[in-house]
Amino acid sequence: MLVKTEHVTFDRELKLQSGAKLGPITLAYETYGALNKDRRNAILILHALSGDAHVAGRHAAGDKKPGWWDNAVGPQKAFDTENYFIVCSNVLGGCRGSTGPNSINPATGKPYAMSFPVITMADMVAAQSWLTEHLGIEQWLCVTGGSMGGMQALQWAVSYPDRVKSAIVLASTARVSAQSIALNEVPRQAIYADPNWAGGDYYGRTIPKAGLAVARMIGHITYLSETSMRAKFGRRLQSREKYGYQFVTEFEVESYLKHQGVIFTERFDANSFLYLTKAIDYFDLGHGLPNLAAAFRHVQARCLILSYSSDWLYPPAQSEELVRALLKNGVDATYMEIQSDYGHDAFLLETDRLAALTRDFLARTARG
Amino acid sequence: MLVKTEHVTFDRELKLQSGAKLGPITLAYETYGALNKDRRNAILILHALSGDAHVAGRHAAGDKKPGWWDNAVGPQKAFDTENYFIVCSNVLGGCRGSTGPNSINPATGKPYAMSFPVITMADMVAAQSWLTEHLGIEQWLCVTGGSMGGMQALQWAVSYPDRVKSAIVLASTARVSAQSIALNEVPRQAIYADPNWAGGDYYGRTIPKAGLAVARMIGHITYLSETSMRAKFGRRLQSREKYGYQFVTEFEVESYLKHQGVIFTERFDANSFLYLTKAIDYFDLGHGLPNLAAAFRHVQARCLILSYSSDWLYPPAQSEELVRALLKNGVDATYMEIQSDYGHDAFLLETDRLAALTRDFLARTARG
Repeated sequence: MLVKTEHVTFDRELKLQSGAKLGPITLAYETYGALNKDRRNAILILHALSGDAHVAGRHAAGDKKPGWWDNAVGPQKAFDTENYFIVCSNVLGGCRGSTGPNSINPATGKPYAMSFPVITMADMVAAQSWLTEHLGIEQWLCVTGGSMGGMQALQWAVSYPDRVKSAIVLASTARVSAQSIALNEVPRQAIYADPNWAGGDYYGRTIPKAGLAVARMIGHITYLSETSMRAKFGRRLQSREKYGYQFVTEFEVESYLKHQGVIFTERFDANSFLYLTKAIDYFDLGHGLPNLAAAFRHVQARCLILSYSSDWLYPPAQSEELVRALLKNGVDATYMEIQSDYGHDAFLLETDRLAALTRDFLARTARG
Repeated sequence: MLVKTEHVTFDRELKLQSGAKLGPITLAYETYGALNKDRRNAILILHALSGDAHVAGRHAAGDKKPGWWDNAVGPQKAFDTENYFIVCSNVLGGCRGSTGPNSINPATGKPYAMSFPVITMADMVAAQSWLTEHLGIEQWLCVTGGSMGGMQALQWAVSYPDRVKSAIVLASTARVSAQSIALNEVPRQAIYADPNWAGGDYYGRTIPKAGLAVARMIGHITYLSETSMRAKFGRRLQSREKYGYQFVTEFEVESYLKHQGVIFTERFDANSFLYLTKAIDYFDLGHGLPNLAAAFRHVQARCLILSYSSDWLYPPAQSEELVRALLKNGVDATYMEIQSDYGHDAFLLETDRLAALTRDFLARTARG
């Protein structure tokens, strides 16, 4: 499946949750499958922290890797491109084609860097609502995503109740916990600590590679589980049989993390990392309300909430809290905790089990 | 209780597990209570990564804080200084008075820095065995510690079976997992990434404060549990009522972690952090043996193994693995998983429940 990334620029200002204004706004997006005549088979896939618009397929036949959720998006897959029109857009604040801190600020002719306004999940979703209008879609059959993508899906159901027929939320939460904030703040501190970060003004100069790599390494630990790390690496040594008693990379798990850190710096912008983790920290649908349930008063979407037993970043208890809050409002919500050793990454990997659930859920939603 | 730190220097070389030699060796230690006539009431307390010899009491009446385990060591406490002679020594490789990377290498007249040899838990314990002889103690009534201290206690029971009558191991493991190695390697990378680290040659210059602070912040997340962070901080804001939509410290949990990072840099040496975490990574009592149980073939000590339900750094399953390996050798081992929300830190905090267990265990050991 060959696809290409499209770009649309909206030449107007978005009023952000903070009160600041941002515009013009460009969004990068990809589409898969065909919109049907009544424009009612469209599914919006929302990506996680490090994702982008390229959710499935390849841009060129020779591409080594397909999109980030290729095992879930395609013919006969969890999100079946033969039946549905799939859209995925890079978030506002991102660094993969959408307006973000590495974009040129038209007012100055220079990259925004840290003058980019702080954005929230609601702002990302507001920008996506413009894309939705641009595509001529009145109502999404489904909005779906894992992790930060799940937060956007929930925000969609809350912000635009009549434009969301269903939501599938994977490995996510309705309010980010203290531990998750901590696990975002420390990586940010690692970036700030890199002198090359230079207050964010590194575009065209040396990038804060070391800080961003450490940030990503912390993230990777949270995406795996103790069990999956044990199975994947155990205490195996890298390229040696005996302890070397020296400060080189000795264990396979060290080598893996260092590699993940380095390759991330080749495709991701450190300032975007700061803005997106900050948007995650602010995410609390109950903020300013008497309780979390009050957030879902107007939700019309049918909801399928999935958690993964070994996910300790957004553990099942947080999904259960979300489901209780939905049910209090009479929302049609189905919940399942999927047994998996893959930790938070399970939402990306357990796609056969996902497909078994989404096929029926989407078909019923399309009929109902 | 006023105490002071003693120092003893052994003017000889220790042959390390790596094959390298290190000497002379100074150990800083403190003692509490009195050694009885038959010299059989001595307990060795072994500290964790960031601990030191100052386990209890105060050095001066005006000291703001007592030693790191003051709630467990003292009259009528878990380790009762009215009945027992308590010894605690700063580990080899440490930075609180014992020989470590910040010590002067007598061969060069300069600090060892990264020319300090890589050490292991067995090396730390070997140095402690010299202190034991120096104090005229033939057999410890008990060796005990939590986390890295528990590793040393196990190493004592394995390396010197006839010199250890009992061992109490808290929140620890017999072999460090891939996840724990990962959680040590990323902080090390944060230190390496700080240009002030300068390959370890920063003594007398600017210390790698930013890198060490990030390292410590990662550690602190692993010492708490999701539940304890929720209870302690939740999503509470620091000194403000509304989201500021800016990159300053907003949440209490961020403020707490930053503070912990900063104060750590005032009392701990970055190179020591590297050497001690490396010693932890190498810790695998089953290394080179057919299985873990083979490590405990000669153990004579009665063992009390305690884990804490919400400890995800050294989770209960790892203590259970240890206990099974001890029992396979007919070792007199008692195991208890203590229900606690405090995460790994529970071993430092749940001292009332600890005292209820140690009083009887130590009294029976002293009699038996």
